[in-house]
Amino acid sequence: MALFGGIEAGGTKFVCGIGTCPDDLEVHSFPTVGPVESVRQAIQFFQDKAGSRLAALGIASFGPIDLDRTSATYGYITTTPKTAWRNFNLVGALSTELAVPVMFETDVNAAALAEAEWGVSRDVEDNVYITVGTGIGGGVVVKGEAVHGLLHPEIGHIRVAHDLDKDPFIGSCQFHGDCLEGLASGPALSQRWGHPPESLPATHPAWELEAHYLASAIAILVYTLSPHRIILGGGVMQQEALFPMIRRNVVRFMNGYIAKPQLREEIDRYIVPPGLGRYSGVLGAILLAGRCRQRPAAQD
Amino acid sequence: MALFGGIEAGGTKFVCGIGTCPDDLEVHSFPTVGPVESVRQAIQFFQDKAGSRLAALGIASFGPIDLDRTSATYGYITTTPKTAWRNFNLVGALSTELAVPVMFETDVNAAALAEAEWGVSRDVEDNVYITVGTGIGGGVVVKGEAVHGLLHPEIGHIRVAHDLDKDPFIGSCQFHGDCLEGLASGPALSQRWGHPPESLPATHPAWELEAHYLASAIAILVYTLSPHRIILGGGVMQQEALFPMIRRNVVRFMNGYIAKPQLREEIDRYIVPPGLGRYSGVLGAILLAGRCRQRPAAQD
Repeated sequence: MALFGGIEAGGTKFVCGIGTCPDDLEVHSFPTVGPVESVRQAIQFFQDKAGSRLAALGIASFGPIDLDRTSATYGYITTTPKTAWRNFNLVGALSTELAVPVMFETDVNAAALAEAEWGVSRDVEDNVYITVGTGIGGGVVVKGEAVHGLLHPEIGHIRVAHDLDKDPFIGSCQFHGDCLEGLASGPALSQRWGHPPESLPATHPAWELEAHYLASAIAILVYTLSPHRIILGGGVMQQEALFPMIRRNVVRFMNGYIAKPQLREEIDRYIVPPGLGRYSGVLGAILLAGRCRQRPAAQD
Repeated sequence: MALFGGIEAGGTKFVCGIGTCPDDLEVHSFPTVGPVESVRQAIQFFQDKAGSRLAALGIASFGPIDLDRTSATYGYITTTPKTAWRNFNLVGALSTELAVPVMFETDVNAAALAEAEWGVSRDVEDNVYITVGTGIGGGVVVKGEAVHGLLHPEIGHIRVAHDLDKDPFIGSCQFHGDCLEGLASGPALSQRWGHPPESLPATHPAWELEAHYLASAIAILVYTLSPHRIILGGGVMQQEALFPMIRRNVVRFMNGYIAKPQLREEIDRYIVPPGLGRYSGVLGAILLAGRCRQRPAAQD
């Protein structure tokens, strides 16, 4: 029987999986190291577990990546702050070795697709999936399809209002200083407070500030993309106290302008954790691998 | 022969049109007054010019509006700051009197669709159309279709970074104070500088600040919607000196993060004025009226 493979290539770890859906999934994770060694470990997993039965592979990668099949650098990770990975041909490295069709997508677009297919967005046509971890990224599904446009969404790099009197931390993004990622990613929290986020108790003032920035970004997403649901995942969001704080701030920022119950009494079902837990990304990659097999003539 | 009608219901003026495309268009404009009198004048125009030959009508309206056909308030203008228009059933008022199928869309989504069909976005699949005038609004086309989602984009209300030391104006938006519309709409310019924008010379410092805010919003749109083109129209954009200032600021804000020529050497073709001049909105309304006739079973 043919098997589908998926890789979530994240900034912190690689998650490799084989399967067809959340109930039929075998995964293997390892910390992200350099590109050559990370790819070697992924190939090893697929060769050991699937061998010649591997029919197609989906890759859900951190970005920015080149998704334009007409481009000379299609399949590359491009201007990432992670210098070892800059201009690395991820699709090329994997497809050469595994000799199967490869689908390429951002980690967060793949996660948004998986949540739409199997997770917490099955009942709506559009959603945004935001991961808050080593970096901040956002995937966008509109009418059931991932949005690419000119490049692909890079939601972590939007600039949010930053009051230097209240928060003198100048931000950790090497491209933009105090963009959302520069103010609210895991490394930003570590640098601002001197402790990694997982060591900060739920009552620490770090979380109220974090919720303020994430809610600022979510309000912007409501005004630009108007999604039916917003999903927040990633390591930093393991602090569950963030959810009610974020929801409260979003309602306050909108100030009743968008007269929809989702932004008032139903906000608990509007801003939610992933339905697929830590496997949204790798399941999205597997979903794309399956679609590639089903629709070989329309791989875009 | 059947005729298609379109209305751009704007905050400043109503533009009524009959025709099929930019080369076949008869328009009549009048200043927006209260809803009853504005609707009366529009009906008069269509009865005089088309009579029983009017086959369908498109309405491109300022917002927020209710586009959900399953809603009890479908066809209404909802939480607009223009109190006389709040909770007004615009579609109902026009369809009752004219007795033709009516298509409803935001003014800016309609303009974005018209620019995609006949204007400056014919060569790409997605665009954002922003109007800067009495208010600020943005329409979004993804893969050839207008984005609605939960409501519809309300790009004027995104919050941009606002340095009160450099710009102590607190903003004019009655919902959010210093959101983009509160800082950069025509009324915001008039209040901040004591003169209406059309009376400010191209060398006035108002324009550098205006370009800064609009570029801040455009950078956010690149990171969220990733459009292939951004079109800037509306009364304030008649100050043509704004375009090079905005482009320069966008390149600076992005800081090379999105490695695409559109955001570097080709930015003059990325951020552009409308190809259809002041008629993008009414032409979008006519486009929708024509589609309604062609696809009566799929009006959404």
